[in-house]
Amino acid sequence: MKILVLNCGSSSIKYALYNMDDKSVMTSGGAERVGLDNAFVKVKLANGEKKQIMHDIPEHTEGVKFIFSLLTDPEIGVIKDLKEIDAVGHRMVHGGEKFNKSVILTDEVLKAFEECSDLAPLHNPANLKGVNAVKELMPGLPQVGVFDTAFHQTMPAKAYMYAIPYDLYEKYGVRRYGFHGTSHRYVSARACEFLGIKAEGTKMITCHIGNGGSIAAVLDGKCIDTSMGLTPLEGLVMGTRAGDIDGGAVTFIEKKLGLDADGMSDLLNKKSGVAGITGGSSDMRDVENAAKAGEPKAVLAQQMYFYRIKKYIGAYAAAMGGVDVIVFTAGVGENQISMRSEVCKGLEFLGVKFDDEKNNVRGEEAIISADDSKVKVVVIPTDEELMIATDTMNLLK
Amino acid sequence: MKILVLNCGSSSIKYALYNMDDKSVMTSGGAERVGLDNAFVKVKLANGEKKQIMHDIPEHTEGVKFIFSLLTDPEIGVIKDLKEIDAVGHRMVHGGEKFNKSVILTDEVLKAFEECSDLAPLHNPANLKGVNAVKELMPGLPQVGVFDTAFHQTMPAKAYMYAIPYDLYEKYGVRRYGFHGTSHRYVSARACEFLGIKAEGTKMITCHIGNGGSIAAVLDGKCIDTSMGLTPLEGLVMGTRAGDIDGGAVTFIEKKLGLDADGMSDLLNKKSGVAGITGGSSDMRDVENAAKAGEPKAVLAQQMYFYRIKKYIGAYAAAMGGVDVIVFTAGVGENQISMRSEVCKGLEFLGVKFDDEKNNVRGEEAIISADDSKVKVVVIPTDEELMIATDTMNLLK
Repeated sequence: MKILVLNCGSSSIKYALYNMDDKSVMTSGGAERVGLDNAFVKVKLANGEKKQIMHDIPEHTEGVKFIFSLLTDPEIGVIKDLKEIDAVGHRMVHGGEKFNKSVILTDEVLKAFEECSDLAPLHNPANLKGVNAVKELMPGLPQVGVFDTAFHQTMPAKAYMYAIPYDLYEKYGVRRYGFHGTSHRYVSARACEFLGIKAEGTKMITCHIGNGGSIAAVLDGKCIDTSMGLTPLEGLVMGTRAGDIDGGAVTFIEKKLGLDADGMSDLLNKKSGVAGITGGSSDMRDVENAAKAGEPKAVLAQQMYFYRIKKYIGAYAAAMGGVDVIVFTAGVGENQISMRSEVCKGLEFLGVKFDDEKNNVRGEEAIISADDSKVKVVVIPTDEELMIATDTMNLLK
Repeated sequence: MKILVLNCGSSSIKYALYNMDDKSVMTSGGAERVGLDNAFVKVKLANGEKKQIMHDIPEHTEGVKFIFSLLTDPEIGVIKDLKEIDAVGHRMVHGGEKFNKSVILTDEVLKAFEECSDLAPLHNPANLKGVNAVKELMPGLPQVGVFDTAFHQTMPAKAYMYAIPYDLYEKYGVRRYGFHGTSHRYVSARACEFLGIKAEGTKMITCHIGNGGSIAAVLDGKCIDTSMGLTPLEGLVMGTRAGDIDGGAVTFIEKKLGLDADGMSDLLNKKSGVAGITGGSSDMRDVENAAKAGEPKAVLAQQMYFYRIKKYIGAYAAAMGGVDVIVFTAGVGENQISMRSEVCKGLEFLGVKFDDEKNNVRGEEAIISADDSKVKVVVIPTDEELMIATDTMNLLK
């Protein structure tokens, strides 16, 4: 079975074609600058070879069409006929309270998804454009939606409600939704397989630490709390996002700088995080290097970044009555050795016994706690695309 | 030595006269509706008798003058001459980064305090009015300022900085300050006395839970983190304050409701918290009763309230590498038995062994954990006024 995975943003279309017989990626790539000048597509072939092709992509349908042509291209294509594709799985951002799992994208489902656009006005319409493009180009091809928010829908109300007037929840859906759900779901399930344990009875904390970052408390395989909120701003210190901040500071800054809601949102989402503190890069590798070189603001940014993660681990341990497994994943989580050690040191009271030698890994599945550590600390590289392909396959069966 | 403690708000003046020879309160009370119609003063005498006296109080100097007249009143007064008062200690709200301890209020100090008014535009000017009123009425009488923020000045930068553009800290002082510092300082010191332990080497979490609420992590007797932020909005779910909320939710609501920064601040500070969720009372006693009667929103509000406290305890345990002592104080902390038990249950992984029978106390110093609990959980009634009087006395010596 061949599954195409699409992740359509407002000006980008990422794709990966899976052969689900062996779960291998036949080809992957992405269109960038969709709707802008100088659009191009990057292609990565199964043998690792990479190509970049300039192509005018005024809107999403043209982008999907061009990606389809690359899949069947005589030279760089990997299939002979588009009919070999059994289904398309889409990453969809905000499913609101309507979707707690992946679903086949019927007209009814798409209508419900469209109703969530208010909660993600940039992302949901872009996701929909991708779905509609496929519908137009390959009518009748089954399509599946996999929602970033779905895994977190098991949170209890005490975790997802904000302490604000209740009618803001009823009228506008203001509550915690959480994001990166497909990643948290993948790594929490995969960590159980990797460790040979059952999800039932396991208290797990999954740390998805990338340019964006979120942490989830996963009890019995179900999310009971997560650090991102109504929007992906809340929680950890991120590349350019502030994470947790006093609501009183938000209104204070608005007044000081004369910003309206959009301007403030821009400041908190795009000009904050480690980039805001250092005045420089949002990439943790740059921050780490600058910190090693003794640049004080980089040192501070890194300390804040680590400290926030540590506090969430403590908070979620309290939420679950302890913790059995801590998982690190995503770009920083899989690769930044110092982050993992700084976060885990001082957590001995939870039963964590860290092993610096074992921690000397990047981008591979590994146990990084000592053999006799009560809490298992593991690195599990995330694979949201595979999860989307798998959900899509399972729904077709 | 006789010390008058004053706590001047924008429309109120609370006072207490201490005889520091035995730390007893000779009389206390408060002027309310200062600057409004129908102002009055409530007086509590040493024998517990209470009186309410109507008196026109157009501004703070008149209020302080009237309070002075009551102190020496032939019938209800407790001193013969104002000269018996050795000094006045003031509760001052926001000392910014300028004050890390209590100080004698010289002109220079008052100027520095005035420079902090930007951070507490309602409270600091009112505090100053009280100081100036005493200066006018009793020139030369020593006055001392005790700051709500001072105890938290020992926080490291990783705890007090927000991940926003650094120049917002430099230009406008946007950072975490924390409040209720006098209470956290009092109960953390008192808990050590009560338990017969030293502050050095002790990891303590102090939970000041009243109509407003905040939690502090106190390591070696020094605050290293606290839940309130730039403003007293951040952190716990409170009577009418939201506590922690996604900054993205703040700007989302502003847009939905067409609110400016002041309107949003008002919503988050005055219409949120348990009152916002239940649509009713901000008093936890009412919420507890409604929850007992099965009212779903009261049940939810209570769960949210407890859950947030529990998460902060976990976070601060992680910040300190564990916890030795948990202290509950202030109106709810001293009196709500169910809050303490709901928060502490499930914290066995931290070493808490709770004792429901011992927890059956209100408003008195008590150990409420089991005798063999690794973590001592205690109730310590707070006494900010006594702390202010004590600081004032010590500075005069």
